[in-house]
Amino acid sequence: MDGATAAQRHLEQFGARFLHDFVTLLQIPNVTGQLPDLRVNATEIARRFEDRGAKMEVVELEGSSPVVLGELRCERPTATIGVYVHYDGQPVDPENWTYQPFSATLLSDAIHNGGESLSLPGDGEAIDPIWRIYARGASDDKTPLAVIPAALDALVAAGIDRTVDLIFLFEGEEESGSPNLERYMTELAPRLEADAWLLCDGPVHQTRRPQVSFGARGYSGFELTMYGPERELHSGHYGNWVPNPAFELARFLAGCKDDSDRVTIEGFYDDTVPVSEADRAAIDALPPVEDALRRELGFGGSEVEGSTYPDRLMLPSFNVRGIRSAEIGEGARNVIPSRATASVDMRLAAGDDPDRMVDRVDSHLSAAGYTVLDRDPTPDERRSHRRLARLDRLPGYRAARIPMDSPLSWTLLDVCGRASGEEVVALPTFGGSIPLYLFEDILGSPVAILPIANHDNNQHAPDENIRVANLWYGVALWATLLTTDFSPVPAGGTQGSTLR
Amino acid sequence: MDGATAAQRHLEQFGARFLHDFVTLLQIPNVTGQLPDLRVNATEIARRFEDRGAKMEVVELEGSSPVVLGELRCERPTATIGVYVHYDGQPVDPENWTYQPFSATLLSDAIHNGGESLSLPGDGEAIDPIWRIYARGASDDKTPLAVIPAALDALVAAGIDRTVDLIFLFEGEEESGSPNLERYMTELAPRLEADAWLLCDGPVHQTRRPQVSFGARGYSGFELTMYGPERELHSGHYGNWVPNPAFELARFLAGCKDDSDRVTIEGFYDDTVPVSEADRAAIDALPPVEDALRRELGFGGSEVEGSTYPDRLMLPSFNVRGIRSAEIGEGARNVIPSRATASVDMRLAAGDDPDRMVDRVDSHLSAAGYTVLDRDPTPDERRSHRRLARLDRLPGYRAARIPMDSPLSWTLLDVCGRASGEEVVALPTFGGSIPLYLFEDILGSPVAILPIANHDNNQHAPDENIRVANLWYGVALWATLLTTDFSPVPAGGTQGSTLR
Repeated sequence: MDGATAAQRHLEQFGARFLHDFVTLLQIPNVTGQLPDLRVNATEIARRFEDRGAKMEVVELEGSSPVVLGELRCERPTATIGVYVHYDGQPVDPENWTYQPFSATLLSDAIHNGGESLSLPGDGEAIDPIWRIYARGASDDKTPLAVIPAALDALVAAGIDRTVDLIFLFEGEEESGSPNLERYMTELAPRLEADAWLLCDGPVHQTRRPQVSFGARGYSGFELTMYGPERELHSGHYGNWVPNPAFELARFLAGCKDDSDRVTIEGFYDDTVPVSEADRAAIDALPPVEDALRRELGFGGSEVEGSTYPDRLMLPSFNVRGIRSAEIGEGARNVIPSRATASVDMRLAAGDDPDRMVDRVDSHLSAAGYTVLDRDPTPDERRSHRRLARLDRLPGYRAARIPMDSPLSWTLLDVCGRASGEEVVALPTFGGSIPLYLFEDILGSPVAILPIANHDNNQHAPDENIRVANLWYGVALWATLLTTDFSPVPAGGTQGSTLR
Repeated sequence: MDGATAAQRHLEQFGARFLHDFVTLLQIPNVTGQLPDLRVNATEIARRFEDRGAKMEVVELEGSSPVVLGELRCERPTATIGVYVHYDGQPVDPENWTYQPFSATLLSDAIHNGGESLSLPGDGEAIDPIWRIYARGASDDKTPLAVIPAALDALVAAGIDRTVDLIFLFEGEEESGSPNLERYMTELAPRLEADAWLLCDGPVHQTRRPQVSFGARGYSGFELTMYGPERELHSGHYGNWVPNPAFELARFLAGCKDDSDRVTIEGFYDDTVPVSEADRAAIDALPPVEDALRRELGFGGSEVEGSTYPDRLMLPSFNVRGIRSAEIGEGARNVIPSRATASVDMRLAAGDDPDRMVDRVDSHLSAAGYTVLDRDPTPDERRSHRRLARLDRLPGYRAARIPMDSPLSWTLLDVCGRASGEEVVALPTFGGSIPLYLFEDILGSPVAILPIANHDNNQHAPDENIRVANLWYGVALWATLLTTDFSPVPAGGTQGSTLR
């Protein structure tokens, strides 16, 4: 029996127990930065892997959320594979969720398809693969923490030996920008040696076909605040004499792109590695998804007319993730606001440097006549400068990619194909940001991304969810991977692994 | 004894009681739109004027906040003066207030001067004119509702006869844009006949000198929403492919003004009555306030370099009073927002039409490629339009002004001078918006504005307040006005009263 079959038989018998165990894991709140909650998650996760024979340890460096570290060896390993997962989730605003984010509710289908809440099935009851579980962390990124233990159980039940040694590194502050991952990796490096690392994050392809990503975008970003009068002023008495910071912020942001949505910040695209011929071929082989996505996500046209989705991922982005000044709607008042803030994230392509990207924004502000501070101005500074801006840098990191034509890449594509019985999508770069570069720089390992979640999982937004079919795929994927012969993959991974 | 002296003697003896009565009036919450609270205000205000011998009535048309209507006659009137006040206040966000907005706290000085909370004085205890009372409505616009009864008490105590008949109209939804004032006036017109109406709103001059305003800006505005994907999307997976509504909103707003802050919306300035020679002379006679205001309000330079404050009031304004999309700061998430909204108020100069101003914004949106709706788009509309905007009109009205060289104008300037002993500032137009046009159109009366509050009163913002010195001026002003011979003022007011 192969791993995928073992997974299938196990879920036929114990699928209900699997869902129950996953729901209880999701019910532990995991908002990034909420240390007491995150500690509870770490302990519970370690316990679940220990129950499957792994040696686990919760390690907490001062001033950080703990990592869960572990290893699970086998008798005749063909490779050592590191598994990185993050167990923290994005902040939640429960008012915007249909079901409470930490109640972990099972639904008969997606909410947008009219799905309704269900009781969890009992042992042996039928489970429909279109069901979904709604919870923060359901897809980003507690999924692997449920499917790997289930895959281990399935192999034990089927009496199949594993062929891979596993190293675990589960992080608790990825959604805060992984500010301490480098410290953890450096400190724990001797215990993190592996031939390759796999990151289990993000969604499979929009066609619902399985996917392997050979890189991920980097991350950079900033919060930008502009200042008006020291306190809000009556817009009748002072409107169009006292400068309005909401307008000035809008003007600055608007000036960061031209009419065809190309970023005009000087040097913004200068460091980006051009798309290679191999990338070009991979991109051209991707199934077209634009029209289907547009219908599904509900918008009328792409940012840049005629551009394809995978092509846009090869360039750095400039995304206003939030903007705020005074109030709108019922709470709106007739004032000149005192300040206005925009929060911007920039997804980086290979070659882009996170600090340099914000440096360029800083220069763009200076060129527009702003005095740039890293704190709120003093009253005196407000009085003596017509244009004052505060620029707060968000923690970031560079993009990383591995070549698509290597033994590791071929093996991973093969694993996903056997686990799913479907044609696998090979993506040059994943759209989301994951600190892959640390695995390359500190651990000297190649990294690839094996996603499990459905693409319509509302990751980072209200109503995050995962489809049962994707959970089942995840169990099959790991049962297959753990019984695969990795010996063609050279120790320490593939050569020439990083494409900066 | 003259009115001002009577007021002074009365306050020396009963100032503490006055403060107590004012505080209890301010402690009745008066957020605009909160009908149950507003009714309590109306009843209490009527009672206070009835106690001084006025005939009062609370009139409530269906679907509106009540008006308080009244009259107070005297034996030998030289004129009938109408008094318009609004008793509702702007919304409050208590978290942003230093003291709770409806606790009505007495402070030893302004908060920004280090003022500290005081107990109310007892009868006969010394009262410092630099004290302030902090509360929503303290200056905008419950002040006249406290000082007129006190002026009446002062005249009775001094045994001085009044020379003016008074008509009262106290509105309860001015801060919602006075949507029913026209209905009330039309219905109640026979009971609102007066030779002139006085509006008691807004601040005195920034030099703290008394002021008469011979007009006010009109009001128009809108809320503008732009749409991104139907739900928030992960900015890594979709950033710079799916359009970002926060950015598009910023771009549209930025495009509404040129680099020298002149509004570029076609026709925006076309209807504005040019500054006349009389206006020019009045403006040139105004004390310069720009540098002092800049220091006091804490900003580094005016919106348009080199422009004077009163000159800017002669033009329509375009003020972003609030903007919002997704979240900033600790709650920020890495998303492409689903929508972005800006709330904009436009202060109108003489000649501008409130509807036509929003029509021009609508045309500007269309010219920028937007399909403009007056509601949220349907999912199908979102899919079939690259640029969709929702435009909600705020209720508005035109500006109105009376000539500065008429018997009424001269008399009012004289009253303020005698009440204060200071040189009075004559302002061609008040910066705030007040529906003066209704008094002209429906009641056929000229209108002028006699403000009482200090300019640094944080009107419409958190920490609204009034100085005790200004309250004292208000009592003197009304005691003087009520004992002034208005016979040079022609019945029905001054000729050629409106300058459209």
